[in-house]
Amino acid sequence: MKEFKKESLLDMFLEQPEQFLSGEEISRRLSISRTAVWKQINKLRQAGYEFEALPRLGYRITDLPMPLEQEKLKTFLQGGMGRELHILSTTPSTQEDARRLAEEGAPEGTVVLAEEQTGGRGRMGKSFFSPYGKGVWMSIILRPSQPLHLVQQLTLLCGVAVQRGIRNMTGLAAGIKWPNDLLINDKKICGILLESKAEDDRVSYCIAGLGISANISKESYPEELQPIATSLKEESGRAVDRNDLILSVLHELEELYKIYNRDGFQPIASLWEASSITLNREVSVQSPAGVTTGKAVGLHPSGALLIEKSDGSHYPVFSGDIRISPVQKG
Amino acid sequence: MKEFKKESLLDMFLEQPEQFLSGEEISRRLSISRTAVWKQINKLRQAGYEFEALPRLGYRITDLPMPLEQEKLKTFLQGGMGRELHILSTTPSTQEDARRLAEEGAPEGTVVLAEEQTGGRGRMGKSFFSPYGKGVWMSIILRPSQPLHLVQQLTLLCGVAVQRGIRNMTGLAAGIKWPNDLLINDKKICGILLESKAEDDRVSYCIAGLGISANISKESYPEELQPIATSLKEESGRAVDRNDLILSVLHELEELYKIYNRDGFQPIASLWEASSITLNREVSVQSPAGVTTGKAVGLHPSGALLIEKSDGSHYPVFSGDIRISPVQKG
Repeated sequence: MKEFKKESLLDMFLEQPEQFLSGEEISRRLSISRTAVWKQINKLRQAGYEFEALPRLGYRITDLPMPLEQEKLKTFLQGGMGRELHILSTTPSTQEDARRLAEEGAPEGTVVLAEEQTGGRGRMGKSFFSPYGKGVWMSIILRPSQPLHLVQQLTLLCGVAVQRGIRNMTGLAAGIKWPNDLLINDKKICGILLESKAEDDRVSYCIAGLGISANISKESYPEELQPIATSLKEESGRAVDRNDLILSVLHELEELYKIYNRDGFQPIASLWEASSITLNREVSVQSPAGVTTGKAVGLHPSGALLIEKSDGSHYPVFSGDIRISPVQKG
Repeated sequence: MKEFKKESLLDMFLEQPEQFLSGEEISRRLSISRTAVWKQINKLRQAGYEFEALPRLGYRITDLPMPLEQEKLKTFLQGGMGRELHILSTTPSTQEDARRLAEEGAPEGTVVLAEEQTGGRGRMGKSFFSPYGKGVWMSIILRPSQPLHLVQQLTLLCGVAVQRGIRNMTGLAAGIKWPNDLLINDKKICGILLESKAEDDRVSYCIAGLGISANISKESYPEELQPIATSLKEESGRAVDRNDLILSVLHELEELYKIYNRDGFQPIASLWEASSITLNREVSVQSPAGVTTGKAVGLHPSGALLIEKSDGSHYPVFSGDIRISPVQKG
């Protein structure tokens, strides 16, 4: 009964996609209360539909959900990244799912995707906003042969892969903030978390976690994120097919990873530097030893960021948050 | 009934610890079959008792079990390594137990001990022989502030701690084979496995797994280990109280870890070099790039082993098995 009403509500909107329907009219035609109308609209919103709501005019449908499509993804992912593909509707964290699969012996290239994460994790224990149907919440199992002390190189490689995947698909050129945050117009479009497990200096596996804000509307963000986060839809003005975006990112990742395994880190470092917004800027870095400031001048072969201090010496930064000073007007 | 008989059997041996009891006499006094006598002796052996068995003479008790003593250990471990102590009778792997505890947020210094591991793990997926009551099967949670690319330093630190702990307790001077195998008379006395979990270059936790062969008799080893493994009891001629050994190792680990956190890796490297049997020897190393041979000349500040090749160049080895060439007679 409830399901029937929900479909009817949706049908009413889909019959006349451009037009507003007042709450009163919906209430009358479906014989349900105004509160029930409001609840059903919210349910559709959670499933990925979007509505514009205006006083007096009522509701108008503005966006349909574009679900993750297992068949399409499987057709285009053959044998490389995505060779084993797990698509979930909702999960606490794709990182945890991938970690379990890796422990059970899942091969390199195994990918876990979810429409929604209820406990998405970012770097340093921060939570990661991962609403239903609006982004790419993806974890990829890697089993690199490179030793543990070079794993920072993979962190940078992942950033480059997503930067290029987004550009190929949308034309948007995100900048990479060291090590691998992607920003457009100074706002974050993607977070990357590389988790590793090792025995001595031997890597057992890495889980690359990618969170790309595809179709999140500005007003859907929690208030504290609104000034610092954005989405591809907000920046390009149109919704992105997440399936195409996933394919674009995974193809880039596969290609870069092949280059890395064959030719080493140098070609990856060059691509990273070309998209970096950190290089040639004054930065400050918080580390256990205190705050270091200086000019970011390049990458160390290990993947560390080299900072030139005021005395001309170079200081390698391996981890931590860096702060980029505002550009000086000349 | 069975339990009563077992205790009677033990009582018979303990009344006259120096004397042999024939199977026939035991069988008669306990009114059980000769097969049952043999089975009960084996049960006692599994619980840590040892018997000498000689044709005609019968059995003589030679060693009593010395169990892990929670109270004693807790009294001497206050606030540092061992601040949280879990003692298990049997477990598949103390590494797995410690990993679960670390994921649940257990503090640095948490220690898991077991009388027996049924699925003990060594390096590179090898199994690790961990019989009941005969060794120190121990995993320690560390949460270092040093970045991931320096974690090899901790691998070496653990080797030094066990080497010194054994020496202080038994007088036996084991040699350290890079990175952290401990050998006495060219036979392995201890294996160490350092497992790490990291986010980017930040270490979430390390689990140091130590397996020290304390009181394993030569003949108890599986055949394939007999030529390459030994125990403290075999080398010193007397059984070791594992509780004292655990305290000795944990106190060394605590002290060295404090020095490391305060003064960095250099003092640890010096101690390692002083106990190394790898330095100044011709070694060959198998890596993905092929086999490298040369003379081991020292430690790189990162913890890598520096090998001097025949052309005089230095090559850092971060992981892998090294093979030490036999000493040339001069």
